[in-house]
Amino acid sequence: MYRDRIRLKSLWGKVVSAEEAALHIKDGMTVGMSGFTRAGDAKAVPLALAERAAHERLKINLMTGASLGNDVDKILTEAGLLERRLPFQSDPVLRQAINRGEVMFVDQHLSETVELLRSRQMGPVDMAIIEAVAITEDGSIIPTTSVGNSATFGILGERVIVEINLSQPLELEGLHDIYIPTRRPFREPIPVVTPESRVGLPSIPIDPAKIAAIVVTRKQDSAASLQPPDEETSAIAGHLIEFLGHEVKKGRLGNTLQPLQAGIGTIANAVLHGLIDSPFHGLKMYSEVLQDSTFELFDAGKLDFASGSSITLSAKAGGQVFPNIGKYKSRLLLRPQEISNHPEVIRRLGVIGINTALECDLYGNVNSTHVNGTQMMNGIGGSGDFARNAHLAIFVTKSLAKGGNISSVVPMVSHVDHNEHDVDVLVTEMGLADLRGLAPRERAECVLRNCVHPSYRELAGDYYRAALKRGGHTPHVLEEAFSWHVRYQQQGSMLPRKLNVASV
Amino acid sequence: MYRDRIRLKSLWGKVVSAEEAALHIKDGMTVGMSGFTRAGDAKAVPLALAERAAHERLKINLMTGASLGNDVDKILTEAGLLERRLPFQSDPVLRQAINRGEVMFVDQHLSETVELLRSRQMGPVDMAIIEAVAITEDGSIIPTTSVGNSATFGILGERVIVEINLSQPLELEGLHDIYIPTRRPFREPIPVVTPESRVGLPSIPIDPAKIAAIVVTRKQDSAASLQPPDEETSAIAGHLIEFLGHEVKKGRLGNTLQPLQAGIGTIANAVLHGLIDSPFHGLKMYSEVLQDSTFELFDAGKLDFASGSSITLSAKAGGQVFPNIGKYKSRLLLRPQEISNHPEVIRRLGVIGINTALECDLYGNVNSTHVNGTQMMNGIGGSGDFARNAHLAIFVTKSLAKGGNISSVVPMVSHVDHNEHDVDVLVTEMGLADLRGLAPRERAECVLRNCVHPSYRELAGDYYRAALKRGGHTPHVLEEAFSWHVRYQQQGSMLPRKLNVASV
Repeated sequence: MYRDRIRLKSLWGKVVSAEEAALHIKDGMTVGMSGFTRAGDAKAVPLALAERAAHERLKINLMTGASLGNDVDKILTEAGLLERRLPFQSDPVLRQAINRGEVMFVDQHLSETVELLRSRQMGPVDMAIIEAVAITEDGSIIPTTSVGNSATFGILGERVIVEINLSQPLELEGLHDIYIPTRRPFREPIPVVTPESRVGLPSIPIDPAKIAAIVVTRKQDSAASLQPPDEETSAIAGHLIEFLGHEVKKGRLGNTLQPLQAGIGTIANAVLHGLIDSPFHGLKMYSEVLQDSTFELFDAGKLDFASGSSITLSAKAGGQVFPNIGKYKSRLLLRPQEISNHPEVIRRLGVIGINTALECDLYGNVNSTHVNGTQMMNGIGGSGDFARNAHLAIFVTKSLAKGGNISSVVPMVSHVDHNEHDVDVLVTEMGLADLRGLAPRERAECVLRNCVHPSYRELAGDYYRAALKRGGHTPHVLEEAFSWHVRYQQQGSMLPRKLNVASV
Repeated sequence: MYRDRIRLKSLWGKVVSAEEAALHIKDGMTVGMSGFTRAGDAKAVPLALAERAAHERLKINLMTGASLGNDVDKILTEAGLLERRLPFQSDPVLRQAINRGEVMFVDQHLSETVELLRSRQMGPVDMAIIEAVAITEDGSIIPTTSVGNSATFGILGERVIVEINLSQPLELEGLHDIYIPTRRPFREPIPVVTPESRVGLPSIPIDPAKIAAIVVTRKQDSAASLQPPDEETSAIAGHLIEFLGHEVKKGRLGNTLQPLQAGIGTIANAVLHGLIDSPFHGLKMYSEVLQDSTFELFDAGKLDFASGSSITLSAKAGGQVFPNIGKYKSRLLLRPQEISNHPEVIRRLGVIGINTALECDLYGNVNSTHVNGTQMMNGIGGSGDFARNAHLAIFVTKSLAKGGNISSVVPMVSHVDHNEHDVDVLVTEMGLADLRGLAPRERAECVLRNCVHPSYRELAGDYYRAALKRGGHTPHVLEEAFSWHVRYQQQGSMLPRKLNVASV
């Protein structure tokens, strides 16, 4: 049954149970596992590993593309398996263990992990575990719904375990474009010059002798848990589309815009969704994760091509797209995340990057990762790869969180992932701040005027005016810069009590 | 006399006095001027402009490559000429005006300014003023000791004023490699694959009809005011060379290392100088400014090639190098700063970037620009272009400043230019912290152990232990995070009084 999926017959004897495969992984090993934004993750071997951990000392350093589905991170954390984890995660249980200091989490730009492995600044990778649609006649691996870091894990890994997933349609074959940069000092330019440039191989070339085991599974990718667009996300999309229309009028963009990237999650997805009713057409994406909105834009005739590193869909969209993937295939490419997120390509193409901020400040600095400056949410992901090199670096957030007890626009962000140098445009449901070419004082006035929720506007203005009295290129009252965060920690709201009461 | 420098005879009639040339500049214009780290700046027309400003309303938006010499920024500031200034400066008088909010300063990654101009997100450039060695037969401009942003200013500028500087040796001709990226969406890879790749033209191609005026000058570039290596900078160099030796032993680098970049200033220059007595050889530089150390390394037989955007030397080194520039010419290239600092090329070549931190924190975040989080020093310059994309992003600083009243290693930096994601190695005279692949808590322990001056070590340890009690991926006590800075503002020292007294 699975033999049409393992086309190199000499590998048939490698098929074992997940439990047997997991025995190849020893305490202290560094494991590189497929999986990017819940797509194409290894689903059987990690769970078998977790069971082993109940009976023996077993700790691993786990690298992936990005976040995993199927509660794999939760199960591995609860089994106490994770010594070190990188470069991204989004699991509530793992997150807590990270924040307790039990798992050493290394939060990296998604384009950089394999660069560090290749130059031996991290690693070596003892074992790669890669989900595959099939293994080809020459032993190469055809990935499933993501490429992520799988290609480099497979190439650099000492040994490789392949999970053949029968629930992943064979039609995914041909969707992938595996390009690995050549070695320094002989590295050549990456030849991607448009989102649709096909520059690599359709599968991951590895020496089949490295394949330690093959496991056959049928478990599906976890569905994305996207919230539907709401009043605020629609307002954010509206502001952004109006702005892009203005850019077209000014002659800075054409009606086909420039290649679009949108970060993972509800807000960025909703913004892309909003393009369905925009005047733009012939759009292309050069992004990392392709979400529901990508296929909605295809179906609406707005999108011509999408390049990404993974496809992560809601249950509903997945049920429509994957059985019909052949219909979309000629307009899709999945690349290694090093290439989907590569500074070289993003800068060359002039990508319009849309990413979600956890909080931003008056001067346009953005915190993508740390609640109250200390508690890790998910990780920086690809937002830095895109924002630094984009034609337009746009960050979106609702102006309020926690029922109004948190303002997403604060005097000073409690952690900086993207600083003023890299943030061109900030959008909340209140409005859009175009910060390009502005000095910090001008940025502050623009953010105050456009982005802050009315319930915090006076408070923010008070801070800024007090800071102005102190002077400086970027005025601040250092001893008050985190006063909103401290108040939230101590009183449960960033609003002072009197304002709190007044607003009830 | 100057006619051998203006080879297109039809331009001879354009030669005028600086005063006449300056009349082409009107109130409200945006002016793009040559000059990068005091090298190759326009020297006559800006001064004539300043004299005009005494008698009439005259405000301009001034863009350059980077910092200017010959007190030009001081004189323009004092004349009240500057409305807006970007992307970098290092003048004490201008700095004060910026910090008072009188001049709107836009602090940019040095590779990005012309990208914003080209895509019309800033600009237009009404007038370019470019210092030149000569104008060729077809009217192209041969720059002098820097390229900076001059090529794009010349190409995009509505009109161009050329300052022919007779004191700049004609032998500079042939040193420049002017490559301008093609337009999106048809942009091709930048073909630089080694520091010595020559991919462009030897001069800036412009339509000679755009030349509004030509001014002949003899004023020399300002010399760099480098401090000689001292005990601390030598210790920093020593730690770094030991580390690089370790990298070679581990097989991560060869004995020729990878292309080197060093930021402007005394510490980075001293570190490069230290390579003279290292076991490394056959070195290459892919940097922005080439300082004294570049030529010391050439003379010591250590350096094979240096690519930069400017040559900025001390008076002594300049007196030796420029009269003999022919001796070095085959091993030098000056490029537009967009190319010397381009993410694409830096990442491809695997540059080792060495830049100076103003302060850093326990988690490896770096502040390059803002004293006490508010007062601008110079600007981020190229440090972000290099650190984000380097094979190794190294930041150096002395552990103390202001006679020990400031610790350069603080609990939390008061402004973030480079965050933990981009900082691989921190070096002070106390030691070196190799932060690669470490989680924030591990980074903090490494920085505490290696980089903090003994007089602040207990204080820093106390902060970290208190933060650990609060927990989090990146532990902090938010209400105390800037307590050292506040203490310095209020009491003149980051040390509490009792420690202060004890240390006397």
